[in-house]
Amino acid sequence: MVSSQVVNTYPLSSYTFGTKEPKMEKDTSVADRLARMKVNYMKEGMRTSVEGILLVQEHNHPHILLLQIGNTFCKLPGGRLKPGENEIEGLKRKLTSKLGANSPALVPDWQISECVAIWWRPNFETIMYPYCPPHITKPKECKKLFLVHLSEREYFAVPKNLKLLAVPLFELYDNVQRYGPVISTIPQQLSRFQFKMITN
Amino acid sequence: MVSSQVVNTYPLSSYTFGTKEPKMEKDTSVADRLARMKVNYMKEGMRTSVEGILLVQEHNHPHILLLQIGNTFCKLPGGRLKPGENEIEGLKRKLTSKLGANSPALVPDWQISECVAIWWRPNFETIMYPYCPPHITKPKECKKLFLVHLSEREYFAVPKNLKLLAVPLFELYDNVQRYGPVISTIPQQLSRFQFKMITN
Repeated sequence: MVSSQVVNTYPLSSYTFGTKEPKMEKDTSVADRLARMKVNYMKEGMRTSVEGILLVQEHNHPHILLLQIGNTFCKLPGGRLKPGENEIEGLKRKLTSKLGANSPALVPDWQISECVAIWWRPNFETIMYPYCPPHITKPKECKKLFLVHLSEREYFAVPKNLKLLAVPLFELYDNVQRYGPVISTIPQQLSRFQFKMITN
Repeated sequence: MVSSQVVNTYPLSSYTFGTKEPKMEKDTSVADRLARMKVNYMKEGMRTSVEGILLVQEHNHPHILLLQIGNTFCKLPGGRLKPGENEIEGLKRKLTSKLGANSPALVPDWQISECVAIWWRPNFETIMYPYCPPHITKPKECKKLFLVHLSEREYFAVPKNLKLLAVPLFELYDNVQRYGPVISTIPQQLSRFQFKMITN
């Protein structure tokens, strides 16, 4: 029996945030994105993407770090693995690309913990499911969400075209309209953990 | 790093289903239920309830066993712990009460695995959250969902006033209207597991 795990969570104020050069989205529309996905699938097969859930606390309630693009769209830091790339190494590479400083000495030593959710994209469409639907033998994407343990102090460098938000679980919960099906059910996936709120 | 766990899942047809005496609900209305909860809270403090997620497979897709009361309401097998009772022992007791044969030799040897979700009831109301909401210092109920590993062969005795249904994940997903917030997000909570579909 695996009992509920304790996750140390530090105040947002214990982290430092700077900026770095913009990281532009590769696609300017959903249609472009799906078309690029199709081209890549033809070359490399199923896309595997990895995303990190980075937790902080404010007012004794867990918050998740999300990158906001423009005025409304939010995403977890992460991205697509290279063909054959290890999931953990690939997620560290993507977290550094999205949130690490240009100076290697300032980049967090990312502690990737367990996978908390897996989503499947059966077709070259936006809809994903938390299982591979029956009769789908060739899913087009598998997206894995990992818990990332942050140390007490970290420096994050946020690309200038993005905003980094700390969003409370109570804001994500039951808010599929704003955050989509993947991010809005993170509170349920994290519910089994015990968050130890560390103040300083 | 804890990698994705493998869960063996056997066909529904490998299990045998009989009936036993009815297990009536203690309350005939939601209002009665909340009133009884309040009385028990005064006597015993926060209620802890435990429920089991029992998995079978059909057509290579995982299904969950749900107890249906009347024509629409579905629930996971489980129930309230006695004050001070161990969660695992309490869940075994409840599973036997709900689904075990009267003859002890026929009762499954319940293999309770890890907790996959925890829900909190902040007030004597029906609404629950997958976290303890901020400023709630005295939640009224904590409900824990555990994965239960079934052996290849089991005999289940279903109370005559209930129906036991094997509901596919794709039916539960995104179906809060029919199954409520706790059961409809089980697919997300199970997404990190790898189901090994065993045929016979």
